[in-house]
Amino acid sequence: MSMRLEIISIGDEILMGQTINTNASWMGMRLVEIGIKPCWISTIGDDAKDLNTALIQAEERADVILITGGLGPTHDDITKSVTADYFHSDMEIDKNVLVHIKERFRRRGISMAKVNESQAEVPQKARVMNNDRGTAPGFVFEKNEKYFYIMPGVPHEMKSMMNRIVLPELTKRLKGLVTRIRMLATTGIPESTLYEELGDISRIEKFAKMAFLPNLKGVHIRLTAQAESENTAFANLDRAESKLREHIDEFIYADQDIEIEEALAHWLRERKKSVAVAESCTGGLLMDRLTNVPGSSHFFERGVCSYSNGSKMELLGVSESDIEAHGAVSEPVAFQMAKGIRELAHADYGLSTTGIAGPSGGTDEKPVGLVFIGLSDEKGTIVKKFTFGEDRKGNKIRSTQAALDLLRRRLLRMI
Amino acid sequence: MSMRLEIISIGDEILMGQTINTNASWMGMRLVEIGIKPCWISTIGDDAKDLNTALIQAEERADVILITGGLGPTHDDITKSVTADYFHSDMEIDKNVLVHIKERFRRRGISMAKVNESQAEVPQKARVMNNDRGTAPGFVFEKNEKYFYIMPGVPHEMKSMMNRIVLPELTKRLKGLVTRIRMLATTGIPESTLYEELGDISRIEKFAKMAFLPNLKGVHIRLTAQAESENTAFANLDRAESKLREHIDEFIYADQDIEIEEALAHWLRERKKSVAVAESCTGGLLMDRLTNVPGSSHFFERGVCSYSNGSKMELLGVSESDIEAHGAVSEPVAFQMAKGIRELAHADYGLSTTGIAGPSGGTDEKPVGLVFIGLSDEKGTIVKKFTFGEDRKGNKIRSTQAALDLLRRRLLRMI
Repeated sequence: MSMRLEIISIGDEILMGQTINTNASWMGMRLVEIGIKPCWISTIGDDAKDLNTALIQAEERADVILITGGLGPTHDDITKSVTADYFHSDMEIDKNVLVHIKERFRRRGISMAKVNESQAEVPQKARVMNNDRGTAPGFVFEKNEKYFYIMPGVPHEMKSMMNRIVLPELTKRLKGLVTRIRMLATTGIPESTLYEELGDISRIEKFAKMAFLPNLKGVHIRLTAQAESENTAFANLDRAESKLREHIDEFIYADQDIEIEEALAHWLRERKKSVAVAESCTGGLLMDRLTNVPGSSHFFERGVCSYSNGSKMELLGVSESDIEAHGAVSEPVAFQMAKGIRELAHADYGLSTTGIAGPSGGTDEKPVGLVFIGLSDEKGTIVKKFTFGEDRKGNKIRSTQAALDLLRRRLLRMI
Repeated sequence: MSMRLEIISIGDEILMGQTINTNASWMGMRLVEIGIKPCWISTIGDDAKDLNTALIQAEERADVILITGGLGPTHDDITKSVTADYFHSDMEIDKNVLVHIKERFRRRGISMAKVNESQAEVPQKARVMNNDRGTAPGFVFEKNEKYFYIMPGVPHEMKSMMNRIVLPELTKRLKGLVTRIRMLATTGIPESTLYEELGDISRIEKFAKMAFLPNLKGVHIRLTAQAESENTAFANLDRAESKLREHIDEFIYADQDIEIEEALAHWLRERKKSVAVAESCTGGLLMDRLTNVPGSSHFFERGVCSYSNGSKMELLGVSESDIEAHGAVSEPVAFQMAKGIRELAHADYGLSTTGIAGPSGGTDEKPVGLVFIGLSDEKGTIVKKFTFGEDRKGNKIRSTQAALDLLRRRLLRMI
């Protein structure tokens, strides 16, 4: 069965370019994964007349219409009333939703504004979709076997509703070819080199289509297999993956869309190892990433951000004469920082970063983007030198990624 | 004159979420600057029938239609032929364009593929827009005083064409009203409470339209004023802003779209003050945010992330008996962390966080989302208690925002 699907994104801020429509891209990606290519995205403002027009046109063109935005409690949120009118539906208070909203406010210990009570009003003819991340419920209208899913525009609320309710319902309604996706997450190799390493890609694409999705941290390779059955699709993914691994195995840190710190957390806990970090140019981002993983207290003991020279000496025992002789951005300082934090924290691994994040502070000898990464363990301490770019946040991200990849390679005995 | 403008973005890769529609956002921003709010963005795939439908609908709704994408030389680039058909126009080779294309290939020292010659074919009834960044020319159709601007989808080619040709032409055609925007960045107050605090908003919207843009860190309020002249538009923004400030002044940290750490960096440097941080539940995110600001070494001296009880005692002098009596997530521990790091770093301000980030680790007495934030300076040390949500990253973001807002309030002598 072929299903025509249209997305309607609502919000003046998107039309005016203040918000980029990442909701629609995220939905597009997830829909493609289950075998649906959206055929139209209409982006309109907070305008009742335009929304009404968009609903009429979408109903003509599509079988499923996904609508996001304009469900908040303020005057410019018109989606609920316009869609209710469109389906000739009165409003009623949904008691479950009201309880849910009150509970959310109670738990946060803040009093509920009167205006929030109106969020419990839902169109009588609609089925309510519970919002487990916020106060505005979603809802679904059905008309002549066409489905209108209406969701909040707040990204994590929308995503949760899509994952819990919308995508499973659409998958159920699809019959025929099944599409299965696998993501291989790589790091430490640029997209063009990766592509060259793979050689003749037709040997891989025979089994699954390949797409390269690069970002500052690495390149994700998305494999997409379509087949008569789920088993065949998965078997084709396996074949494509093993062909890929013949060439680039060492760069793949996961066979799913996760961050390298999530993979590391797994390996560290499995081996009962701990890590401590000493950061300079990355300014706390390295520990932030490690502690983003639930349960990180099992492997992360402490971190310091020694931004000044004084703090490098006081907190980590870096030698003053080495700082004077080589500068704070140098191999010996990265070495002593990594060793220092490991000993201080009694951790199995110590990681360090020191560099010039930019945008200013570079010299001919030490340009913006120069970074030294240290790794210390019982076997010794190593330091690697990198030259990244000119963008401050980009340099922070790429430096932390290089540090985490160094730890991965040591943990997996690749170095 | 009010001008209705619609954008049509063409490309399967946008529908499938592989490319985010940053072209449309960029165009939206630039159009708003010259006083035009786009009213509709239609995103469609590389599909002739859908493009034809989109052209019909756009012509009904809008006076100016900006179209990007699908002008390349390959089989799935259909924009030129479909629009030529739509305007009943034959194709002809444009000699200037052909020379331009050949010259580009010559300069790059590569031979021109036959397929590129077809890029010099343009619809007879259209006016050609020269592409100074690539090979595909843009063109303009005019019909009943409606204008269809057709541009390549490659961002820097489109942007150059907009800047050189489209925006100047639209500016000329606009008579009358100019639109000006101001963003007020607030934090520490939920959207619904903000709305209630403002009371009768018609007193404000008399001068400028208001929109609320909430995220995990706070709510941005966008003011939009339209007037006969730029001076009047700015004067109306000033009036709307001062009405707003009568009610919610204390929550506004900036009159532009910046992060609170950028505002803090300015105030700290202006006052020659420094800050040091001791983090537990925020895991390094607080220092990461502070060091995202270029030049942060002027006010940020060091930070520690004391994740374990041992590190809280060793690094910050937190009392073991207090940890035993009250737990690591408690008011006395936040107090001692803030005071400890300030003294250790000889900083003017010490900030601390301790809490339960989740998703697990909560109890009835201390649920996930419970966070204590400490602030220490020469006048003393204060601790505030917060209850956020269930999402780990969300709790980290909201906790750091609360800590930075506490520092803002102290720096500006509000507490």
